Amino acid sequence: MIEVEVKVHLNDPKYVERRIISLGAVPTAIENQADTYYNMPWRDFSETDEALRIRVQDGEAFLTYKGPKMDLISKTRKEIQVKILDENDMGEILTSLGFFPVATVTKKRKNYRLGEIVIALDEVRELGNFMEMEISVKKSMNYEEKVERLFKFIEKLGIERGSTIRKSYLEMILEKNNTLNCSPMTE
Amino acid sequence: MIEVEVKVHLNDPKYVERRIISLGAVPTAIENQADTYYNMPWRDFSETDEALRIRVQDGEAFLTYKGPKMDLISKTRKEIQVKILDENDMGEILTSLGFFPVATVTKKRKNYRLGEIVIALDEVRELGNFMEMEISVKKSMNYEEKVERLFKFIEKLGIERGSTIRKSYLEMILEKNNTLNCSPMTE
Repeated sequence: MIEVEVKVHLNDPKYVERRIISLGAVPTAIENQADTYYNMPWRDFSETDEALRIRVQDGEAFLTYKGPKMDLISKTRKEIQVKILDENDMGEILTSLGFFPVATVTKKRKNYRLGEIVIALDEVRELGNFMEMEISVKKSMNYEEKVERLFKFIEKLGIERGSTIRKSYLEMILEKNNTLNCSPMTE
Repeated sequence: MIEVEVKVHLNDPKYVERRIISLGAVPTAIENQADTYYNMPWRDFSETDEALRIRVQDGEAFLTYKGPKMDLISKTRKEIQVKILDENDMGEILTSLGFFPVATVTKKRKNYRLGEIVIALDEVRELGNFMEMEISVKKSMNYEEKVERLFKFIEKLGIERGSTIRKSYLEMILEKNNTLNCSPMTE
């Protein structure tokens, strides 16, 4: 599948939640997710803009691959996800093959649905509050129209399209940790 | 887990089956397995003696990693297996990451159990009949004693320990196809 996706930072998540509810969004699930991202020595995913992760979510586990972003304005990318029965064994298979874990992103996610749009209100550990909006389309379909639909939706919420974020939580976490590590020592 | 394993070719599978039953082996399952093996461009599993496969077995699917053989006399190796919910999506994740399918081994397997020994009577497409005997041990345990136990067991069946096979079905299939491909053209 292609996941057409737009993400924004939220200063006031409660306000945005009330707004999307008033627009007709229906709550579908609250999830606790711990996503461990892997990289490999032969192809640096931070350069190829791919991602491989094991997600553990309320007792269930998934292996997910994300391809490079497909345009310059949204987070739209190919995504393949398989449910797996044991995240520890899957992690051991990945490390046996040469993959190595890079970082774990932990968040509480509130899911809403508004027509074809899946909305996630994320409270991400170390990073803060964000909203991800997603429309799934088949690989063969034109997705550009869906990107525009998501931009129109955030404008309805009073958020400018220029303020959308194309960075993944993983990239944000790594940048944050890197900045902390590289910051000059204070006396 | 470590899978202590010994394999032999069977000329007369019916006779061997009657023999193991007379020794007390209990039938546990009959399975139809299609194992698709993958390799990667960066590390040739045929050289490192590793294996990565997706097994589809009577509607269920598994991802399995096997490490290099641990001794010079048996097929004992580390094995990690995860049940997965969709073999097609798993295959697509593997190929997206750069792995490529090498060959598919298809077989009908009759499983027996005799104490701690799991016995598989395999009818392998293109290769014929084989028996694999396996004892699972924890990583920390000494496994050599279990190898000896399996050798003693095949001797009881009238099979010489020197006739055991250390090649995997994948290696045998590849060799066979290679021989066929390389054989001189006949007019």
